[in-house]
Amino acid sequence: MNIAPGPLLSMINSPADLKQLSREQLHQVCDELRQYIIDVVSVHGGHFAASLGVVELSVALHYIYNTPYDQLVWDVGHQAYGHKILTGRRDAFPTNRKYNGISGFPNRKESEYDTFGVGHSSTSISAALGMAMASKIKGENRKAVAVIGDGALTAGLAFEGMNHAGVADSDVLIILNDNCMSIDPNVGALKEYLTDISTSQTYNKFKDDIWKALGKLPVGKNFTREMASKIEHSIKGFINKNSNLFEALKLRYFGPIDGHNISKLVDTLHDLKNIPGPKLLHIVTVKGKGYSLAEKDQTRWHAPGLFDKITGEIYKKSFEVPQPPKYQDVFGHTIIELAEQNKSIIGVTPAMPSGSSLKFMMEKMPDRAFDVGICEQHAVTLSAGMATQGMRVFCNIYSSFMQRAYDQVIHDVAIQNLPVVFCLDRGGLVGEDGATHHGAYDIAYFRCIPNMVVSSPMNEQELRNLMYTAQLEKNDFPFSIRYPRGEGVMPEWRTPLEEITIGKGRKIKDGKEIAILSFGHPGNFATTAIRELRTDGIDPAHYDLRFVKPIDEDLLHEVFSKYNKIVTVEDGTVVGGFGSAILEFMAAHNYKADVKMLGIPDRIVEHGTPKELYRECGYDAAGIVAAVREMVGEKVQVNVKL
Amino acid sequence: MNIAPGPLLSMINSPADLKQLSREQLHQVCDELRQYIIDVVSVHGGHFAASLGVVELSVALHYIYNTPYDQLVWDVGHQAYGHKILTGRRDAFPTNRKYNGISGFPNRKESEYDTFGVGHSSTSISAALGMAMASKIKGENRKAVAVIGDGALTAGLAFEGMNHAGVADSDVLIILNDNCMSIDPNVGALKEYLTDISTSQTYNKFKDDIWKALGKLPVGKNFTREMASKIEHSIKGFINKNSNLFEALKLRYFGPIDGHNISKLVDTLHDLKNIPGPKLLHIVTVKGKGYSLAEKDQTRWHAPGLFDKITGEIYKKSFEVPQPPKYQDVFGHTIIELAEQNKSIIGVTPAMPSGSSLKFMMEKMPDRAFDVGICEQHAVTLSAGMATQGMRVFCNIYSSFMQRAYDQVIHDVAIQNLPVVFCLDRGGLVGEDGATHHGAYDIAYFRCIPNMVVSSPMNEQELRNLMYTAQLEKNDFPFSIRYPRGEGVMPEWRTPLEEITIGKGRKIKDGKEIAILSFGHPGNFATTAIRELRTDGIDPAHYDLRFVKPIDEDLLHEVFSKYNKIVTVEDGTVVGGFGSAILEFMAAHNYKADVKMLGIPDRIVEHGTPKELYRECGYDAAGIVAAVREMVGEKVQVNVKL
Repeated sequence: MNIAPGPLLSMINSPADLKQLSREQLHQVCDELRQYIIDVVSVHGGHFAASLGVVELSVALHYIYNTPYDQLVWDVGHQAYGHKILTGRRDAFPTNRKYNGISGFPNRKESEYDTFGVGHSSTSISAALGMAMASKIKGENRKAVAVIGDGALTAGLAFEGMNHAGVADSDVLIILNDNCMSIDPNVGALKEYLTDISTSQTYNKFKDDIWKALGKLPVGKNFTREMASKIEHSIKGFINKNSNLFEALKLRYFGPIDGHNISKLVDTLHDLKNIPGPKLLHIVTVKGKGYSLAEKDQTRWHAPGLFDKITGEIYKKSFEVPQPPKYQDVFGHTIIELAEQNKSIIGVTPAMPSGSSLKFMMEKMPDRAFDVGICEQHAVTLSAGMATQGMRVFCNIYSSFMQRAYDQVIHDVAIQNLPVVFCLDRGGLVGEDGATHHGAYDIAYFRCIPNMVVSSPMNEQELRNLMYTAQLEKNDFPFSIRYPRGEGVMPEWRTPLEEITIGKGRKIKDGKEIAILSFGHPGNFATTAIRELRTDGIDPAHYDLRFVKPIDEDLLHEVFSKYNKIVTVEDGTVVGGFGSAILEFMAAHNYKADVKMLGIPDRIVEHGTPKELYRECGYDAAGIVAAVREMVGEKVQVNVKL
Repeated sequence: MNIAPGPLLSMINSPADLKQLSREQLHQVCDELRQYIIDVVSVHGGHFAASLGVVELSVALHYIYNTPYDQLVWDVGHQAYGHKILTGRRDAFPTNRKYNGISGFPNRKESEYDTFGVGHSSTSISAALGMAMASKIKGENRKAVAVIGDGALTAGLAFEGMNHAGVADSDVLIILNDNCMSIDPNVGALKEYLTDISTSQTYNKFKDDIWKALGKLPVGKNFTREMASKIEHSIKGFINKNSNLFEALKLRYFGPIDGHNISKLVDTLHDLKNIPGPKLLHIVTVKGKGYSLAEKDQTRWHAPGLFDKITGEIYKKSFEVPQPPKYQDVFGHTIIELAEQNKSIIGVTPAMPSGSSLKFMMEKMPDRAFDVGICEQHAVTLSAGMATQGMRVFCNIYSSFMQRAYDQVIHDVAIQNLPVVFCLDRGGLVGEDGATHHGAYDIAYFRCIPNMVVSSPMNEQELRNLMYTAQLEKNDFPFSIRYPRGEGVMPEWRTPLEEITIGKGRKIKDGKEIAILSFGHPGNFATTAIRELRTDGIDPAHYDLRFVKPIDEDLLHEVFSKYNKIVTVEDGTVVGGFGSAILEFMAAHNYKADVKMLGIPDRIVEHGTPKELYRECGYDAAGIVAAVREMVGEKVQVNVKL
């Protein structure tokens, strides 16, 4: 389907074209940009509401700043569609998030306008400050602007960046895009504070006065930071010197202003551009602005999938037979079943109640399930604190976000051997979100932690049983369960809850000559591969290890006494992951066998559908078939046990 | 040497004994406690100035609170010596930080009064909040108190904790111990803010009024949070509603008060104990209080080593011949040499200018070397931002603290393939600081990151050459260099700077039958071991791999075509570390050999001298000798190359 951008947008191939327009024409540019995003996303999918909220800001920034010489850093980056469209990627935009298409996030490889790759939240202030400090050291006059949402502001990294920016005396502008949302509504004291400040008439009056005073000042060489400070200081004398959270951190605060008023934005940015030093502009926007359904239900329209842009109907696939549920929903319903029996169970998620499906428990047991905001570090240490009091916390964090709480997992949980249950959602390749969101490393970075149980279910029933096992009182040590994004394989998933012996794997089938050892959901790829291989007369054994730590030594002794060709399969990096654990077992017990390790290769994997990426990385069923065929094609070696 | 505590302290075997004393006697307890810390630390070593600063607070907390039912969480914990002495560990205190002695940090295994293990900073608020929330869910009335220094407050985790505490409606007291120091003087906007607030007469006047009003209130069942809020609200009306950084985060703020005034502290805590909800008490203390030299030079007296408590002379070993320098000083001097030639070089440390020796560059090149405070995450993302501008940042972070910036390393540096140089100081077992500080995991958690060079020098010259290599313009990718705490092996370390080919190891010597592969400084253990083994007629080959990623495939092909018995040695976890990289190479190339992997075992290693711990873990020279002897005692197998 060919989607035509509006007449003005059609002519904008770079910000230079945008700058040719009159201020009056910017209104039309905004309308056309918003419409183009709606047109394309409704047909091609992607994040939606966030980019609609910053249409005016995107236009104003590129209109005023000298991009890419001046540098914009978009926090998280799923709101940067407008930015991408304005900076040479209008026609490529329908390939957004598709295999070999443009990325759903800013990406340095894609455009010089994408100054910093993003995907995880709250990096923008630190990155922009680094740019500004470098610019100062080099004697350049490049501007650096970080655009950060109020949700992203709750992460400690953002605070660390502000705390430094306030004293670094570098030319950085932080634009706080205040829409009261991350994916789910924001939480925490900061949110309440921002609501207060946005609605305080008195405060705004003072700020307007400051603003007017500054607006009258001559802009140019003589307008030094000292002058501005002096003037502002005298005005600030009227109010309290510790009047503002941001000013307490030595950031000069401007706003709040209406982030959908393009004229006001352009004027404001024009003035701010010439005010040196660290400063923060607070704008208020509506996530989903301009698409009324999205404005009303922002969580649903965060990334709605395909939809009818006229009626607002979000398309759902319909099936004649029951389909397997998402692992996320299995988690979300199972934790409630468990928590109804075990009063010590608590659920914690850092800002992913919808994505993780912990929302079911938050609705049903609001006193025992918590969304703590975008703060993975706090989520883990809070869970550790609760664990010291006998609570059994299921701390649900996406694999790639768990990277941000790695120290807390080691220092606060594992060293103290506290029984926190880590549900590592989105372990493995996640698909369209791409490189920043793949849960590629957790098997490697978790299994080197002492005391930690590292497990992964091959299907929904296994997930339920692992969750059941993890909450048993006797299992009072750190326990991780990693599972992938999306659907499993069992339409009838509400199986009875059964204990699994920790460290025990399963033999799926015996075989001849070669064995496939799998960890987690790729065991299903192995099952498919074996079906195909058997048509060729090749009959591999298959073992689902379930636990990479502790590993099932009995099962592995069986494997290595029967087979001397081994294929390992995992949805994680092959460097230091499940396959390496098998090699370590072999070294410890002097087994010699040929081992082929399948998994995520040692390079950055980009975006695409999971199927496309599994294929590319060679550990889908076809990849397993190819590996097995290659191994059995070789001369058979006898197994050497020393 | 028998060190006698004073007469009152001698009778205090638990807080119950302390509670028997009159308020007047507490002054003497404080004096005796302070003297006992001075007496013991001067002779036995340990952290010093921090504990002196919280003598009064330690006494007041245990006097007022019902510990251990009420729960104290000491942030970082090196200031908890007074707490330990008051809670049953007075007589064990001379074993502090010694092998099999008590830990230098609170440790749950050691005492029920140590409610949460610490070592890294800024965990206390989240942990205490977790305790308080659990207490509320369980319907208990346990108090939770976090004691956190202003230095620790700069880390994002602390902010995340405060942001949640402000709205969690749980009974948590945060005591901000404001002494303007971490190990080195604090930096950042927050520090300036705290200085402002501490010295603001007007602000204190308002606060005193609030305090007086609250002090007159009846304390008991009727004193609900609502009541207190109402009263405070009316007073706060006089000043600005957004008057205070902490109150912006919905924490009720009290203070600042003199943290060395025991009477005031006891009164204040007594009152605060009965005020429900989240609150923050700001106390001002002097680090090193009561030992004038420590008050004057707090960085030097943070952990001075042994000293003459009368004269203040810090003992230094004297040697007749030149001794090897610390790796830290080699780093500190070499970065200056490099930066004098290469104008793009920048140094960044999160709060460890002294410990890392970046202080030399900060003194000499203040515009190009930065202490950013306790915020490892920001340090890494800031470095990434600078790297986008062509700066070559040496970001120096201790291995165990790098755990806190793991996501930033992956997401902001490696995915973008930016040339940040990570100097991983204190890689491996660190000695007396113990479990929380051992740099045990970095080889495993870094080598699974794509694009990352992972290297480690065997001596000072190698460190210099790796640093030289890392800053060459052509090497424009992430580069990590890990080295241990303390002295190296080369008294004449100022060798000419030479490029090392990336991914190239070194053959130290040929040998017979068996080869030792080492990574980093344990190569020296191997050298010693080989000397001893040769007296027995055993002659191992020795290879120093230098790089675990990329690994030297040419060298390894040589190794595995010559030797079928291999010992790997590393100062890191054997799970997923250097040894596993060797196994992965073998699997990829179908080599079969017996491999014995020496390194940090898969359990929590406690404290002791490095020598004691290397011995315990079995990878010192004696451990290598034993491993080699065991392997060559076995029947020799021919190497099988498929």
